[in-house]
Amino acid sequence: MINFKNDYNSPGHPAILKAVADAADSKFPGYGTDEATDRAKQKIAALIGSRGCDGIHFLPGGTQVNLTAVSAFLRPHEAVVAAGSSHVQMHETGAIEATGHRVLLTDSHTDAAALYLSSQAEGASGAKGAPAAQGGKLTADSVRRICEMHTDEHMVKPRLVYISQATELGGVYSLAELRALREACDEHKLLLYMDGARLGVALTSPGVDMGLSDVAALCDAFYIGGAKNGLLFGEALVISNEALGEDFRFIQKQRGGLLAKGFLLGIQFGALFENDLFFKIARHANAMAAKLRAGLEGLGCSFLVASLTNQLFPVLRVEQVAKLEENFLFERWEHIGGDLAAVRFVTSWNTSEDDVDALINTVASVL
Amino acid sequence: MINFKNDYNSPGHPAILKAVADAADSKFPGYGTDEATDRAKQKIAALIGSRGCDGIHFLPGGTQVNLTAVSAFLRPHEAVVAAGSSHVQMHETGAIEATGHRVLLTDSHTDAAALYLSSQAEGASGAKGAPAAQGGKLTADSVRRICEMHTDEHMVKPRLVYISQATELGGVYSLAELRALREACDEHKLLLYMDGARLGVALTSPGVDMGLSDVAALCDAFYIGGAKNGLLFGEALVISNEALGEDFRFIQKQRGGLLAKGFLLGIQFGALFENDLFFKIARHANAMAAKLRAGLEGLGCSFLVASLTNQLFPVLRVEQVAKLEENFLFERWEHIGGDLAAVRFVTSWNTSEDDVDALINTVASVL
Amino acid sequence: MINFKNDYNSPGHPAILKAVADAADSKFPGYGTDEATDRAKQKIAALIGSRGCDGIHFLPGGTQVNLTAVSAFLRPHEAVVAAGSSHVQMHETGAIEATGHRVLLTDSHTDAAALYLSSQAEGASGAKGAPAAQGGKLTADSVRRICEMHTDEHMVKPRLVYISQATELGGVYSLAELRALREACDEHKLLLYMDGARLGVALTSPGVDMGLSDVAALCDAFYIGGAKNGLLFGEALVISNEALGEDFRFIQKQRGGLLAKGFLLGIQFGALFENDLFFKIARHANAMAAKLRAGLEGLGCSFLVASLTNQLFPVLRVEQVAKLEENFLFERWEHIGGDLAAVRFVTSWNTSEDDVDALINTVASVL
Amino acid sequence: MINFKNDYNSPGHPAILKAVADAADSKFPGYGTDEATDRAKQKIAALIGSRGCDGIHFLPGGTQVNLTAVSAFLRPHEAVVAAGSSHVQMHETGAIEATGHRVLLTDSHTDAAALYLSSQAEGASGAKGAPAAQGGKLTADSVRRICEMHTDEHMVKPRLVYISQATELGGVYSLAELRALREACDEHKLLLYMDGARLGVALTSPGVDMGLSDVAALCDAFYIGGAKNGLLFGEALVISNEALGEDFRFIQKQRGGLLAKGFLLGIQFGALFENDLFFKIARHANAMAAKLRAGLEGLGCSFLVASLTNQLFPVLRVEQVAKLEENFLFERWEHIGGDLAAVRFVTSWNTSEDDVDALINTVASVL
Repeated sequence: MINFKNDYNSPGHPAILKAVADAADSKFPGYGTDEATDRAKQKIAALIGSRGCDGIHFLPGGTQVNLTAVSAFLRPHEAVVAAGSSHVQMHETGAIEATGHRVLLTDSHTDAAALYLSSQAEGASGAKGAPAAQGGKLTADSVRRICEMHTDEHMVKPRLVYISQATELGGVYSLAELRALREACDEHKLLLYMDGARLGVALTSPGVDMGLSDVAALCDAFYIGGAKNGLLFGEALVISNEALGEDFRFIQKQRGGLLAKGFLLGIQFGALFENDLFFKIARHANAMAAKLRAGLEGLGCSFLVASLTNQLFPVLRVEQVAKLEENFLFERWEHIGGDLAAVRFVTSWNTSEDDVDALINTVASVL
Repeated sequence: MINFKNDYNSPGHPAILKAVADAADSKFPGYGTDEATDRAKQKIAALIGSRGCDGIHFLPGGTQVNLTAVSAFLRPHEAVVAAGSSHVQMHETGAIEATGHRVLLTDSHTDAAALYLSSQAEGASGAKGAPAAQGGKLTADSVRRICEMHTDEHMVKPRLVYISQATELGGVYSLAELRALREACDEHKLLLYMDGARLGVALTSPGVDMGLSDVAALCDAFYIGGAKNGLLFGEALVISNEALGEDFRFIQKQRGGLLAKGFLLGIQFGALFENDLFFKIARHANAMAAKLRAGLEGLGCSFLVASLTNQLFPVLRVEQVAKLEENFLFERWEHIGGDLAAVRFVTSWNTSEDDVDALINTVASVL
Repeated sequence: MINFKNDYNSPGHPAILKAVADAADSKFPGYGTDEATDRAKQKIAALIGSRGCDGIHFLPGGTQVNLTAVSAFLRPHEAVVAAGSSHVQMHETGAIEATGHRVLLTDSHTDAAALYLSSQAEGASGAKGAPAAQGGKLTADSVRRICEMHTDEHMVKPRLVYISQATELGGVYSLAELRALREACDEHKLLLYMDGARLGVALTSPGVDMGLSDVAALCDAFYIGGAKNGLLFGEALVISNEALGEDFRFIQKQRGGLLAKGFLLGIQFGALFENDLFFKIARHANAMAAKLRAGLEGLGCSFLVASLTNQLFPVLRVEQVAKLEENFLFERWEHIGGDLAAVRFVTSWNTSEDDVDALINTVASVL
Repeated sequence: MINFKNDYNSPGHPAILKAVADAADSKFPGYGTDEATDRAKQKIAALIGSRGCDGIHFLPGGTQVNLTAVSAFLRPHEAVVAAGSSHVQMHETGAIEATGHRVLLTDSHTDAAALYLSSQAEGASGAKGAPAAQGGKLTADSVRRICEMHTDEHMVKPRLVYISQATELGGVYSLAELRALREACDEHKLLLYMDGARLGVALTSPGVDMGLSDVAALCDAFYIGGAKNGLLFGEALVISNEALGEDFRFIQKQRGGLLAKGFLLGIQFGALFENDLFFKIARHANAMAAKLRAGLEGLGCSFLVASLTNQLFPVLRVEQVAKLEENFLFERWEHIGGDLAAVRFVTSWNTSEDDVDALINTVASVL
């Protein structure tokens, strides 16, 4: 079975494993107070153009970063604004609400299946009626509308805009879109928070015009995903807005996210930001996805949503999906109607050209 | 500098690192639904004599296990009963309270420094007036007293007795003591929960008469500590009481403790319970501690509390402590009064006989 | 100014004030352990056909009842299912989320303004194109769809269906609709909870075919609203499902809802369920609303949604609204588009026929 | 049965009931936005010397005030410092912890029974060996010790000092003691919060040298108790520290403490601060307690703790207690040892001289 199921299906990139193995005989202070952690933070600070490292924290997992950040940043009546397809809404079992805060869903979350079907009806053929927009993104205006609806103390107060770069549907915010969100946030005194579980593939996506320093300048806080970009585990939270950072380690500890062997995170992130590895890994995943997309488009496949990152959502007939499942691992994403289903193919640093060729050839044989 | 600071100061035991490296080219399903995880659970189930694996869960860290378990097991008005020196009270930044539950402290927590001083006064000399009891343990009667004080709906309801095996002060419950606690729990409809961050050194401590199956039989839930016993990271929660286990994975996910690369925990625990490694690691740590204790006693040292596990708490004069700090890393534990201080020396799988000899010799030179 | 703003705009019905005054010289035990409270509970138990009073609790306010019940009934990963227009979603500042639970919104909440406009377009004239459905109600199928979307531990688990009888938009569930919801709940192991802040006007609404005993039989828990039906303050929670009732008073106290002078609630509810007062008050409010509705319909008014209870939502032109505001207090509910706005007129036990006539006459003069 | 059980055993003072009755035919806006509420706030502002009323809020009950204030004022890792005998620790079912915060107990809470016994042993006779200190008070030094013990992010951060004036044991802080606490708070950046459920009897206690304006100047926030000082229900929270007050109404609503008929609280507090009623009621309760204390002392009674407010804690033999219970309602407070028990007699605005005489005479007959 060839694996296109997700981007966290193997232990880690060889360079990361080597860095950990190289430290096997060293001894470290606990809880991230070690020099390996300091060095990793300094590398990140240099990349984002930060004066210091006080706002940089390493945590074991993404849900943990999100819930700890929200818990640290918001007062009890303040709410998170997010897309209906966002990770905090769909795949964290109410982790935000468990810290006491509501997630407010914007009207940006339109029904992807319905949009697909209407775009197909407009197009001359399945392959040509391509989705007009990338999925899962918030617009500045949808944020404004949420704020305008929340007018008094009988309602929660929108306070933190949660976006993912890339989104759960592979969409990527442009610099202009991110600036527009920042502007809406400033108008309504909102914090802008970016879930960067897949920040690597977003920043190396073709045509993307922003770097880590732009993200740091425009967001109050964001995290740089490690687990989906080559690490064994670990995510790097960056709190750009100094006022939010006070006592963060207390809350990190309280929520279970301050690892005793914190040095393991420092060692890994140190290696990830050495020799451009972070971006190399992401570029490879994107390249494999681009090759796969081109191959599928060549076969006349249509896609649920447009994606220029490492997740693709082709629409196939159900019996085609079943045949592919004989040799490939991937997600059935969503039933579209009739006998159509969207599936998800995910590429990663460990996806080879042969894997992609095999998938394209098999799709060709089942169409 | 030779490191006696803690038992989580290096990446992991070579056999654990090797197991992870061996899996580098494999691909796994996410969130612990892989076969490596299944095999690790089966090994644990066999050791504890469990029919199945449904109650076994792997989480990244100890504070996370504690807060997730309490959150899963208790209703809002139910409280945890614990010792004043317990980890949940002293070193988790209110993680239990952050889930909404009170920690009730028993009167078992007597002032170790005062006890030490009075025992010294009774003994003929420092070395001989050894502490009569091991520190940090709850007694069945102290649990009963807590229950008797909580009589109506204006007070929280004691519901879960939290003990550590070994305790934060190196103490170990005997099988008789554990049975007595179980009896008190049954009388008052309490759950018995064991924090086993250092369960390995407890079960292999000289004279200890219980095994994992006894722990599983007597506790409603407990965890087997990995990070302090050779793993990179990871703790194995065992929920023996089936009624408590329902929907645990929901709450594990909600609290951020369901790792995407869950297979990393399965791989490590699989190796830990292969070839008796779990117990070998623990026995080595205990042996090094025993050697160190014998050496220090031979020099006439006294100890704050008795400990037969891998943590020792000798009492030294402050200027002696300062001299030791020139060549050794360890914790200053507690000021005793006058110029006396208790320090903490911790041994681990990576402590060598040479390390211990060096420490004994240096203590001899500063006394 | 004549007041149609809400149904909680004066201290209380004279019979309620008299009951409190009559008790002025008596002394009572605290926290609802008094005989007046017992008698009130027995009256309610008789009306709902309950064997005992253990599941009946008096609390000071409605938001408090909702948050305390959810906190008592649900485990951390379990969620509330509610309509988008529901009180817990719109007017409680995230009280449910503050207890840690998500509110899942069904797709039943369609845009009332859009529905109104389309129904008007279909009708021959404004007055005749009446709204086809009552607003704010959940359907059994929308509950089923929510459950079908929540399939694994990465998502919250729907557990409690929250409905209001009457709804925030004046809608009333029929017995058949309530039974259909119960059936959907049974299929998916859900609890059915009814917010009865306006239960009086719902049960006395023309054509309604259910009584308190039906509500008790079909709901796991519900509350009988006092503050909007003649009391100074106070709501009566009935937990029909015995398994949910364990230790409720602990959680009531913890959430601040166990009043020291609980006897005040017992005295008031005792008077409310004497001489049919509860239903008399509600029938009067409904009668005044019916008179007002008939008057407005006679003037050719259309309504945002149909309502047979004490809240009416006529649609007027904005300049008409402004003129009415010179002599009447009421809510501007929602802007409909163009120069149209829906307003809300609420009647109560203290609304007189003269009040209604004055309003109808004034509307006539501004049309 | 004559009632000395508590100070909340009857509906309310006649002047309060009259004020509510006088408003029976008026109509009010909801949620405390009415003029009666404004006027009541202005009276309180005048008494405390406040520029405005923004920091004054009326809530239905005391536990609710405490939990709402803590929820509004603290970040998740911040803790409350309180006495072991405090209301938040002993009688609120973990309400503070349910908002996510730990209550840290100071060492000020010494065992009252043990102190009593030792003071009796020192005195020549029971009556003369009176308790040297009032019970339940925090000292500035005990606050400092708590702060010095909490040194890093593995522990909660002490942030709010909770005191009661008067305490649960009838003790009263002097102005000097309150200033000393303020000084300790300033040293450690702590908030000072006063639970004033019995603030009336404290401020009118013989020898007390502070007024409401002193309380407002020294505390960041405090509340003026209504339910135990003549109201039907209701407590007035004053947030003196403006920085703490932001968005308080959101959190009040979220926690269920924003009453729809908020005007009922405004009407009552308006009457309470008219004609010195607040202080008159409190002085009467104190006078009745003083008369009772003098009578009991004349009979040779000793007391568990000294109290100059409306709660007395005489120590009696168990068989004497049983005889008193034939004609009087009161609390058995604590068993002292042997056949001795402390009981609690509470006076209130509705305690008459005849009630007191009857109790003294009966005690005389059973001694």
